[in-house]
Amino acid sequence: MLGKKEIKDIQSLEQKKFRDDQGLFVAEGPKIVRELLQEKRSMVQQLYATETWISQNSNILTPGCVTVSEQELGRISQLKTPNQVLAVVRQQKDPEPVIDNQLCLYLDTIQDPGNLGTIIRIADWFGVPHIVCSEGCADRYNPKVVQASMASMLRVAVFYDTELMWLRKQQVPVYAAALEGAELQSFGKIRSGILVVGNESKGIRPEIMQLAKHQVTIRRRGRAESLNAAVATGILLSHLA
Amino acid sequence: MLGKKEIKDIQSLEQKKFRDDQGLFVAEGPKIVRELLQEKRSMVQQLYATETWISQNSNILTPGCVTVSEQELGRISQLKTPNQVLAVVRQQKDPEPVIDNQLCLYLDTIQDPGNLGTIIRIADWFGVPHIVCSEGCADRYNPKVVQASMASMLRVAVFYDTELMWLRKQQVPVYAAALEGAELQSFGKIRSGILVVGNESKGIRPEIMQLAKHQVTIRRRGRAESLNAAVATGILLSHLA
Repeated sequence: MLGKKEIKDIQSLEQKKFRDDQGLFVAEGPKIVRELLQEKRSMVQQLYATETWISQNSNILTPGCVTVSEQELGRISQLKTPNQVLAVVRQQKDPEPVIDNQLCLYLDTIQDPGNLGTIIRIADWFGVPHIVCSEGCADRYNPKVVQASMASMLRVAVFYDTELMWLRKQQVPVYAAALEGAELQSFGKIRSGILVVGNESKGIRPEIMQLAKHQVTIRRRGRAESLNAAVATGILLSHLA
Repeated sequence: MLGKKEIKDIQSLEQKKFRDDQGLFVAEGPKIVRELLQEKRSMVQQLYATETWISQNSNILTPGCVTVSEQELGRISQLKTPNQVLAVVRQQKDPEPVIDNQLCLYLDTIQDPGNLGTIIRIADWFGVPHIVCSEGCADRYNPKVVQASMASMLRVAVFYDTELMWLRKQQVPVYAAALEGAELQSFGKIRSGILVVGNESKGIRPEIMQLAKHQVTIRRRGRAESLNAAVATGILLSHLA
């Protein structure tokens, strides 16, 4: 049975402050936990699972997994519908990426955690190894980011830039997603460069736009005012990555 | 002041059964209401707005708009954060689309309302005038669909197919989004055809796959297992529409 303090400690990881203090986050559900145990086992600090899940996953299980009832899982889960297993996981600090012969994604103030998680999943699909986030982006360890990334957050490195210091010192060309740039189809694959995607309602900040060599536009043929930031990222990467 | 019955009637529109019985739905927020009043005024049955919104929008206002307090708006709103104005709107029954020299999107069991709304917005961006939904798709008048479509639901016609009757009688080629088909880049623009996108976890049902002339695949270069259905739709349409 879980003690009150243990429940409270796990629940506190819903908040960024406590996640950062502890250097931990929560990942839930069979899919991401299975990938964690198979590929990043050393990141897992503690596992909580129902008897059913444990009996079905004895082959990949670490010793020391805590058996919890459905009710207990409900108390520590951050999901509306708790899903069999919850892992408390050590955060990893990804180093500054060095961009050389690859495409890197730079996100300017993507605040919605669902969007950030979906973008991490898209980067993973297209083999983009690094995402750099400006200040103001959602936290990569926010439960909604973890959930929406569908385990891709274990594979794509995410680095947080401070006051554009990282971006300013890059030598490779910067491509900015914009509403009034050159048409996406006029660009070839980017061998080495940085693609910037901006905040959905405000776009890319002027100080970042100034650093861009190219502005890239997904041509609108109908009347919608904009595309969702994650959808736009998917379209851009399908042409440029 | 709003009466109890009026409040209850509006709240009931959160449920499909009541929406269909009444032939009504709810649209909220300045953006969609402004477009409704400018382009589809006859669809609006009743408007509820705060004093601030009314004073700022007197130029487009219909007579008979009901002034509500923030608190009253909170009671009738289906949003977490009520947003100034709420419209009760008449549903429109879109007729069976006739596909001739255009690309039509067919959705097989897209259950997530956020995904359906986002897909409607993508169709609007790429100038796709018709979406046909199989049974099992989310309801186009679900509040989350309306919200995610960002007013594009006023411009894209959505028709609900019954037991594939519509799809089976089409003469134009059917393209199915699949994991093991021909690479997307090998296709040109589709002048006349139907693009089928399937349920995210289950894909396209075999009985629909049988009707497809081509299977189209977004090539994976990394390791994510799948793409979000709306993101995949955006990528497909950016190449094919």
